[in-house]
Order: sequence, then structure tokens, then C-alpha cells
Amino acid sequence: MEETFVPFRGIKNDLQGRLKCYKQDWTGGFRAGIRILAPTTYIFFASAIPVISFGEQLERNTDGVLTAVQTLASTALCGIIHSIIGGQPLLILGVAEPTVLMYTFMFNFAKDRADLGRNLFLAWSGWVCVWTSFLLFLLAILGACSIINRFTRLAGELFGLLIAMLFMQQAIKGLVDEFRIPKRENPKALEFIPSWRFANGMFALVLSFGLLFTALRSRKARSWRYGTGWLRGLIADYGVPLMVLVWTGVSYMPTSSVPKGIPRRLFSPNPWSPGAYENWTVIKEMLNVPFLYILGAFIPATMIAVLYYFDHSVASQLAQQKEFNLRKPASFHYDLLLLGFLTLLCGLIGIPPSNGVIPQSPMHTKSLATLKHQLLRSRLVATARQSMSQNSNLSQLYGNMQDAYRQMQTPLIYQESSARGLRELKDSTVQLASSMGNFDAPVDETVFDIEKEIDDLLPVEVKEQRLSNLLQAMMVGGCVGALPFLRKIPTSVLWGYFAFMAIESLPGNQFWERILLLFTAPSRRFKVLEEQHATFVETVPFKTITFFTLFQTIYLLVCFGITWIPIAGVLFPLMIMLLVPVRQYFLPKLFKGAHLTDLDAAEYEESPPLAYNLAAEIDIAKGCSFAESGEVLDDIVTRSRGEIKHMNSPKVTSSSGTPTNDIRGKTSPWLSDKAYSPRLNELRQEHSPRLGGRGPISPRTGEVGPSKLREGARDSPSK
Amino acid sequence: MEETFVPFRGIKNDLQGRLKCYKQDWTGGFRAGIRILAPTTYIFFASAIPVISFGEQLERNTDGVLTAVQTLASTALCGIIHSIIGGQPLLILGVAEPTVLMYTFMFNFAKDRADLGRNLFLAWSGWVCVWTSFLLFLLAILGACSIINRFTRLAGELFGLLIAMLFMQQAIKGLVDEFRIPKRENPKALEFIPSWRFANGMFALVLSFGLLFTALRSRKARSWRYGTGWLRGLIADYGVPLMVLVWTGVSYMPTSSVPKGIPRRLFSPNPWSPGAYENWTVIKEMLNVPFLYILGAFIPATMIAVLYYFDHSVASQLAQQKEFNLRKPASFHYDLLLLGFLTLLCGLIGIPPSNGVIPQSPMHTKSLATLKHQLLRSRLVATARQSMSQNSNLSQLYGNMQDAYRQMQTPLIYQESSARGLRELKDSTVQLASSMGNFDAPVDETVFDIEKEIDDLLPVEVKEQRLSNLLQAMMVGGCVGALPFLRKIPTSVLWGYFAFMAIESLPGNQFWERILLLFTAPSRRFKVLEEQHATFVETVPFKTITFFTLFQTIYLLVCFGITWIPIAGVLFPLMIMLLVPVRQYFLPKLFKGAHLTDLDAAEYEESPPLAYNLAAEIDIAKGCSFAESGEVLDDIVTRSRGEIKHMNSPKVTSSSGTPTNDIRGKTSPWLSDKAYSPRLNELRQEHSPRLGGRGPISPRTGEVGPSKLREGARDSPSK
Repeated sequence: MEETFVPFRGIKNDLQGRLKCYKQDWTGGFRAGIRILAPTTYIFFASAIPVISFGEQLERNTDGVLTAVQTLASTALCGIIHSIIGGQPLLILGVAEPTVLMYTFMFNFAKDRADLGRNLFLAWSGWVCVWTSFLLFLLAILGACSIINRFTRLAGELFGLLIAMLFMQQAIKGLVDEFRIPKRENPKALEFIPSWRFANGMFALVLSFGLLFTALRSRKARSWRYGTGWLRGLIADYGVPLMVLVWTGVSYMPTSSVPKGIPRRLFSPNPWSPGAYENWTVIKEMLNVPFLYILGAFIPATMIAVLYYFDHSVASQLAQQKEFNLRKPASFHYDLLLLGFLTLLCGLIGIPPSNGVIPQSPMHTKSLATLKHQLLRSRLVATARQSMSQNSNLSQLYGNMQDAYRQMQTPLIYQESSARGLRELKDSTVQLASSMGNFDAPVDETVFDIEKEIDDLLPVEVKEQRLSNLLQAMMVGGCVGALPFLRKIPTSVLWGYFAFMAIESLPGNQFWERILLLFTAPSRRFKVLEEQHATFVETVPFKTITFFTLFQTIYLLVCFGITWIPIAGVLFPLMIMLLVPVRQYFLPKLFKGAHLTDLDAAEYEESPPLAYNLAAEIDIAKGCSFAESGEVLDDIVTRSRGEIKHMNSPKVTSSSGTPTNDIRGKTSPWLSDKAYSPRLNELRQEHSPRLGGRGPISPRTGEVGPSKLREGARDSPSK
Repeated sequence: MEETFVPFRGIKNDLQGRLKCYKQDWTGGFRAGIRILAPTTYIFFASAIPVISFGEQLERNTDGVLTAVQTLASTALCGIIHSIIGGQPLLILGVAEPTVLMYTFMFNFAKDRADLGRNLFLAWSGWVCVWTSFLLFLLAILGACSIINRFTRLAGELFGLLIAMLFMQQAIKGLVDEFRIPKRENPKALEFIPSWRFANGMFALVLSFGLLFTALRSRKARSWRYGTGWLRGLIADYGVPLMVLVWTGVSYMPTSSVPKGIPRRLFSPNPWSPGAYENWTVIKEMLNVPFLYILGAFIPATMIAVLYYFDHSVASQLAQQKEFNLRKPASFHYDLLLLGFLTLLCGLIGIPPSNGVIPQSPMHTKSLATLKHQLLRSRLVATARQSMSQNSNLSQLYGNMQDAYRQMQTPLIYQESSARGLRELKDSTVQLASSMGNFDAPVDETVFDIEKEIDDLLPVEVKEQRLSNLLQAMMVGGCVGALPFLRKIPTSVLWGYFAFMAIESLPGNQFWERILLLFTAPSRRFKVLEEQHATFVETVPFKTITFFTLFQTIYLLVCFGITWIPIAGVLFPLMIMLLVPVRQYFLPKLFKGAHLTDLDAAEYEESPPLAYNLAAEIDIAKGCSFAESGEVLDDIVTRSRGEIKHMNSPKVTSSSGTPTNDIRGKTSPWLSDKAYSPRLNELRQEHSPRLGGRGPISPRTGEVGPSKLREGARDSPSK
């Protein structure tokens, strides 16, 4: 992305780019037919359950002023508007944890102020949203998204781990509260006598841990040994909402022997009752807020604007990673402008605003890649079968499939016709054909088994359209009407879900993996090398890794501690933002350039000279095939705030890219493991499980491979 | 073992064999010094906790007539006597689940009989024990242990799975009872009102599942990534008792907010109160039992005798498997005679008898193998270091070590001096020495790193002595005095332990693995082949495996169902015994001989012609080195009722042996995976994770490898 701060230029480019494909966004969606429902429901569940959980968290923290009704409404409203007039339709919007956190701070501030109090809280929040939208307009107009790459992995992963800690904190807090009398309830009710309170607490423990373990297990269903393929896929995709359902059902099992209030369930007011309309008309009260507080609303607004700018843009980047081979242009600046407008709208009707959410956005893109693959596959298999029945030879067959493939490509009149086509046939297939006779012989199934070969031929592609986003946002809106049913969900199940979200976000977070590395005994480090691991494990001295990780951990704990400070804690985003100059100016003084690049590559730095042969890089512009990426995409760790890690095979190290500007736009090489297996074998021998292994690994710095990049940050979003 | 039924001959041979090494049994134990405490405490915990759990189970089932006091006393008494005057000191005795089951049946019978009732139950049980000991004397005198090999894997594994089901049943029953009012308690007490009962039940769920999961996790600590070697070993060995302690501590956390009876804890009467002496004087009451019942006691006695004969002998076999390279002779017949005497003794003093227990017996041998290895290692390392300081060359060094090794071998004057010695030096070491110069050059650490090489040189050996057995039995006896402390253990922790015992016994049980195979989708079967698997997975058609497994499962369910029949259920051992003729005469009509051999090899059958090259067999009489077996012994699945499976490397299939009489005595070959990798690669390609894998595997029956054997049953116990 070129760094430009000319006002309105970024927005203008975005609009031009996306308007060209606007019509096709819709036609493509409808042409997918009924199959569009699969990604839709997948994302719906992945969006709705967190939003409901955040609603319950907000209900506790704002004394019931905001509940799941408002969070669901916000997610639905912003999602619908964004899908219709937004820039990047792959981006999913929803209420996120930073918003909940900021609103908690704001409520704690407001309720103690005599001039504000609980009643004017929403009005004051409206003013905060007004200021926030103003700042977002400013950022969008000035094209601030161009410099999003200043936020390196250091900041992104620290923020991700902070969010995970906050999730876990909420889970623990929620469970502890199950043993206590809730604040706004009648302490004399039957379910609050000590014995039933203790029973409720224990029951909550059982339900929450039950959900946590079963949900974590179900995510790995694809690699199970048992069950057929479609069943495992179903469990892996829909296991979590299914488990929420199951444990809600379990919570009803002892109904005859317990009072009505046990276990405690989701609270939400009746959205159709007169009193519930209060917050929708908050705009009337906004003028009642004293002028000083209107001005003071600027401070939290700054923090929220910064958080939204960061979260929204990174979510969009993650949804558009290079490996997805997206063809339509990005639209960061315009989307930020639209976010400002949505924030204003939400604030004026008294609901918390939504922004682009991670991990749902890359999950959305991934599910659409699977959809596209299925569509292409069925068409091409039909074509191939037809060809074979007409006794074509191998090259004719391939040609027919190539034609069919091109036909299915959406003509994008604003782009030169894509050079992309099917990938080459495998060498083995070609050899088999030649060994069977000459190349003109008709091809039959023994030579070319279409079912097996098709996945190798199809590159990764994504069905880019707006329909799935719109439908899932509408379904979230439908949840508001389904609240009587949602109210059956026990709160302990939601606390278990918070813990699940925290744990799910850890794999793929290099910061977390470095922390784990600190606890790994030196003699067991070969185990890390056997699995997929980042470059720095081999190239950076362990002492440096320790120092860097300790620095990051202390910083994280400081940020976490700041969130505990009652009012001033609202400024915690400042600490995250502070990481940018810290990374750019302070850290290079403490660490060597080469090490810093391996640990936390930044595009604006020069890369050290590489001893690696760059000719080994594969041009991913051709795209890796779906067969290679098929289960790869399945395993894509989408919840991380880093880039996609391809777990293609246990031996291949994660993809890396070179950070220099010269080869920007070139794609990440898939490192062969040749560079590493001598090292690995050596280490394995050193640390084989015998009594008395050797000491710590001494890295060989001569073999510096290209360092890891955040592809999301490196790509130019507006192609 | 030669099949002979000459009266007293087997016993005579056993006594002669063991008397020769009796003195060394003790001197060897004392010479090990303080290190003997490690295996002792390991086995103590592995014995004591199940015995306490069985005591609680008995307390529930016999209305408090028998409790943990009696089970502990029985285990201690029988263990002490066996260690002093028993034949095979590696065999651990204790109260086992079949005993508890039989006593439950007997109690349910006795309490409803007007002539017996609860009061004369122990007296009547005394008569049962009298008959049992008579039958055991008979079996021992007639040398019935010679035909123990008629019990093939079919019977053994079915019985093992039946025990696992009974464990799980007890765990579930115990947990359900936590929600109810206990039978012999005051229903008006505070802790039994509905709310506290529900709270207690939930608390019990939390504690039992907590123990179950943490105990299962701790068993795998050796392969953890985190923590140093000794810490991981400590957690793997002592994790389970540690977790029992931890969760007992957790049960005290809410003490201030709950009544005293929550959670429910182990019940045991005060062993020093006057009333507790009742059962020790049961011999007085034995004459009060009506004569008809004395005769009738023969029926359960037959069942118990059969069970004890089976359990005791198989436990002894498993403790003496070939891989352990034991040097002292076995003693099956004499031990059975001693068991008869112990049963008589226990019955007369009103405690349930003990018998040889699985898995504690092979665990005992394994821990003594580790001990011996440590003793040898320290001695040889010292020798090597001394040699190197004297500038010996490689062959002198090796010779010195060989001498030191022979010196440490116990001189067994009744045996020709063992041809065993250290294993050969590795080829790599020899080459390294030759490359450094000539062979006469002094050896230094770069050529021969004693710390690394020593494990390759030492064969597997076991420190055979009686001291560890005696000490652990005495410690179990000490538990009776420690009952005030043991009474703090919550019963829910014990139910969790029952579930843990059930789950722990499953891996290695081929019957269970065949059941799992039935649920594995055909396209996922390659995963089974990637891990260690038994021969039949590749050689027997899947349909046959299914049929065989279904047959076994139905039989198991019938046996399990029989245990539910109130009085007649006592005859369930008959069903197990029925498997012997079923296997010998009935099954060969249903299945092909070759398949039957692979699924359930029996020594008395002829093996089909083999296409495999027997020259590839490694002579295990030399013994595999500890380096190869070191972690192998760690991974030995000792809880199975089958033979040891060596999980040496993922690709090597489990060890197999040939069943013909011609090569009996030859040892199990370690199959190279060459015979299997083409097959595995083929299957892997067929079933690689793509959309639409192929159908079921078609086995290639041409490549029949030697079939699996129960080495325990095949070896001649009295060498």
C-alpha cells in the first residue's frame, strides 16, 4: 500500500475499485444457490455465540443498562449495512471485547458522577460515539490505513494475548459469581440460600468445564480416527454451537429436584416491553448531558477510535491474506469511513458499536474458499466425465477442463483476463499416460482418476460475494426475536465459552509459543523442532529469545494491570499504541537487527543479507492447489492475530517471506526442510531420550532462512 | 512348562529351585541400599489406593461388615507372608475386584437367609474360604498350573475388559449414590436435605472428574515437553497418589460454607474400638453355621478357586515375561499352594483373601529393572572413567567394563555361569576409534562418551529380591494405623479412581482395539497402520475381524449381564472358563486356522506355513539393551492382560512370536518394517485426506507375518 495522506484519495480509489464489482458481488452470491447457506450458518454461529456472551458480560458490568438485546441488535444492524454498502464484503462485523471493556470503564465512570449517573450513561456514551466517529472520519479521509503495517507482530500478538487474558478473567469472574448472590436480585429468594448457592456454583463448574472440554475436543474432529468424513467435518464446524445446545439440555436434567433459578441463565429484558424502548430514544437525552462531560467524552473516544482503527483494519487484512487468491480489490479507507458512520448511528440509538472482528473474518473467507472449491469441483468432474465418454486423450481432456474452468471465472471487465488457470497435471499422471501408449490414446479411469486428481488441479479460490454476510447478519438480527429461547442458556455455559475463546486463540500466537518455549527443558527442545515451528527457534540464540519474551511478557502484564485501574484504565490502548515507537526506535537498540527480524519482522526495516537461495521460492501467484491447501485451510489457525500458518506437513517450517522492498509482492516461499533436517537430526541425536542429555541448543547463525512475515500486513491491500 | 500331573512333583521342583536362591534374595535386597525404597514406594501407592477403593466398595456392598480396614489388613498380611515364604517374590498380592464381587454375591445371599443373616455372614465366608483353600491345594498338588496356557488371549482379554466394565459400573454407581441419602445414615441430618444433597452430588462430580482427568494426564508426563527429566519421571510415577492428595485438599476448600458431611468421605470404623474385634474372632462362630450351608459353601468356593487359580498364575506370568531376562526360576505350583494356605488363614480371621494382582506385579518387575539398571550403570561408569584415566585403549576399556559387569552378577551356583555379558559396542563407536588412529591409542571422551554409550551396552536386567515386596506390604499394613488420615479422602475421589483404573487398563488390550477398529471409518484406517498395531490388522480380512470381535463382545455382554443376576450371578466365572473349550473346539470351526492364529494364537495349535524369513529374528536371549528398552519399559503397557507391547518406534509393529513347537524357546523377532512399509505407503496414498477416499482396505494374505503370541503363556515358567 503506498503511503499517501492526500485527503480522500484512498477513499476514492476504494470506491472506484469496489463499485466495478458491486453487481457481481450479488449475482455471484445468488448463483451459488442453496450452497451459500453452509458458510452462512457457520459464520452465524461463530458470530452469535460470542455476541450473546458479550451481552451477558455487559449486563453484569453495566447493571443491566445494556444486555444481549443491544449487542445482538448492533451486530445485526452494522452487519446488514456493511454487507450492503460496505467495501470488503468478506469482513464480518460484530461487538468485540474491547468495546465491552471500554463501555465498562465508561459506566464505572458515569455511575459515580452525580451529574450523569446511571440514567444519563447511554446519553453520554452517545457523545463518546459522536467523537469516535469524528475521529474515524478523520483517519479515513487522511488515509491512515496506509500505515497499519507499523503495527508489527509484537503489538498484534500482545494485544491478542491481552484479549485472551481478559476472556479468561471474565470466565473466572463469572464462575466465582455463581457462588454469590447476584447484585440486583432478591437475596431472600429460595435459590440464594447458602446450600442452593453452593449447589448452583458446583453445577456451574460442571457445566462450564463440560462445555470447555467438549468444545475443544470437537474442534479437532477432522483428524479423528472415528466416523466418516462428512460427520467429522460437521462436528468440527458445528461442534461448538452443538455443545452449547447439549450442555443447555444437560442443565435441565435435574429440573425436578432444584429450584427454578438453578442454574442461573442468560438475563435479558423482554425487548417488546415498554421499558425496553428507553435506550433506543437516547438521542433525546443527549442534550441533557452537561457540557463538560460532552467535552470529556473526547478522551475515551480517542481510545476507542484507535482501537477500532486497529481492529477493523487488521481484521480486514486477515480476511484477505495472499493465500486466498482474492481477485477483487481491498477497501480499507472506505470501510473505515463507513465504520465511523456506523459508530455514530449506534451511539445515537444507544447500542454499543460493532467493528470488524477477528477470528470470524478469516473464518468467513475460508468457508467461502471451501464453497468455491465445491462449486468448481462438481463442474469440472462433470466436464471430465463427459470428455472421457467422448474418448478424448489426455491433452484434450485437460483442455476441456481448462475451458470449463475459465468459463466459471467471473469476467471482471475492469481487470485484464487473469492468467490463472488450472494447475499442471502431476508428473505421475503424465508418465502414466505415456506408459500406457501414446498420448493420443483415449484416457480412461485407470490413467486419470478424476476424483483423485481434481483436488491437485484446482487452485485455492474464494467465492467473493455479499450474500453470505447479509444473511448471517440477518440471522443474528433474528436472534433478538428468539430471545425467549436464548434465555434458556445457562450463564455458566457462557463462562465456559469465554474460557474456550481464550484457549482457542493461543495456538499460532508466536508470543504464546515463545512463552511455552521458555518452559521447555533444553533436552526436550527437539520436540519443538519436530513439529512446525517458526524460524527464530533455530536462528536466534535462546538467551535472546528469553530476553525478548520476558520484555513482551512484562509489557503485557503492565497492560493487563492497567485494565484493573478503575477510571484511568480506559487509557490502556495508549500502551498498545506506545509499542509502535518502542518497536521502531527502542528495540533495535537492545537487539540485533537479524534477530529482531526473525522474531518480529517489520517491513520498514532493511533485512540483513541472506545466505538463502531465493530461487527456491514458489510463486504463490499461481496459487497452491487445493489438495495441498485443502486440509491446510482446514488447519489454518484463524484465531490468531498473526498470519496464517500452514500446517502442511510436520516437517515443513511455517511459511516465511522476505521483508525487503525489492521483492515486495513476491510471495512467501515454501521452505524445503532440507535446510533444517541436518540440524534436526543433529539435535535429535543430542537430545534423544536417554539418561543425561546434553545442554542447550547452540544455534547456528550461518543458516539464516528468510524470516517470517505477517503477510497480511505486507500485502498492498489496494491492488 | 511340561505338562505333568504327577502329584507334588511341580511343587517339589519349585521348592528346590527357589531354595537355592533364597539367601541371595535377601542379601541382594539389602545390598541395594537406600535405593530399594524407590520401587517400594512406587508399588506401595499402586497397591494401597486400589485396596482402599475396594474397601469402600465392600463397605457399601456388605452394609459395613467389611471395610477398608479388612482389605488393607488382608493385603498386608498376605503380602508379608508371601514375601517371606513365597516362591516368586516379584509377585504382588492384594485384594482384587473378583474377590469383592464374589463377596458381594455371598453377602446378598447370606443376608436374606434367616439362618445366616448379616451376623453369620463372615462365618459362612470362612467356610467358603476353607473349601477354596482345599481346592487350591488340590490344584497345586496336581500341577494344574501346567495347563494355564489353555487360557488364550481370548479369555484373558475378555476377562480384563469385564473387570474394566465392573470398575466403570462402580464409579457410576458411586457417583449416583452421592446424590442420594446413604443407607445407614440418619436421613434427618443437615447434609441430607435436598439442597445439600444436590450440592454434594455436584461437588462429587467435580472432584471425581478432576481426579480422573489429572491422573490420566499425569501418566503421560514422561513424554511431556515441559519440565526436566527427573520431574517428569516423578510426575509419571507418583502423579496418581499426588492427585489423590491434591483433590482431597481441594475438597477441603469450601469447608467454611458447607456442613461437615460434605463431601462424603471414606468410611471406616475405628480399628481400635471394641466392636471392631468382632470379625477377627470369626472362627468361633464358624461352628454356628448350619451344616447345609457349610456344604453349600462349596459352590462359591469352586468359582473363587477357579478365579484365583487363573488370576494368580497369570499375574505371576506377566511379572516374569521374557523381556525381563529373569535368572531365577519360577514357582507357580508352590505359590498356588501358598495361596491356598493364605486363603484359609484369611477366611478364619474374617477378612477377604488376597491373590496375585495385575497390573501391580509387572509394574513391580519393571521398577526393579530400572533399579538394577541404575546400580549397574553407576558402577560401570566409574569403571570406565577409571580405565580412561589409566589410558587404556578401546578394547581394554571394554574388557574392564565387562569384568566389572560380571562381578556384579550374582553368582548362582546352581546355574552354569551365564553367557550373558555386556552387549557389543556400537559400530559407530568402533569406527570412530579406528578413524582416530589405531586401536591401541588411549581412548578419551570424544571417542567413547561413557554417559551416552552406557545405556546401549547394558542389557535389561531385574533386581530380583524379596525386600521390596516385604517393605511395601508392611507399608500397606501401616495404613491400617493411618486410617484417621485415610478417612479424609472423599469417596468421590475414589469413584474417580475406579474410572481411572478402568480407562488405564484399556490400551494394549487387543480386544478393545478391535472394537475401536470397528468404529474406524475405512478411509481412516491408515491412521491405525501408522501407529503400532498388531499383526492381524493387515493379515486378517476385515469381515473376519468384525465377526470375531462381535462374537467376543456378545460373550462379554452376556458375562456382564450374568453379574447382574442376584444370586446365580456368582457363577459368572463358569462363563469365562467355558471359553477354553469354546476356543479349542468351537472357534476353529468358524474361523480359518491362519486367521485364528493371528487374532488369538494358541500354543497347542499348529501354525500355518510361513512365508516369512525367520533368519530375520533377533535372538532376545541376548536381551535388548536398556537404551532400546529403556523408554520401552517406560511405555510398557503393564495394565493389559496381554503380553508386553514394545512401543519402540512408531513404525515397528509389535513383537510377535511363532507358535510352533519347533521353534519354541526361540524368541520373538522384531519385525523390520520393510514388510509393511510398501503396504503402508500404498494405503496412505489411497486414503490421504482428500475429498472422497477409497473404500475398505483389501488385505493381502500373501504376506503373513509371524503371529502375535502371549509370551507369558508360551514361556516355560520353570526354566
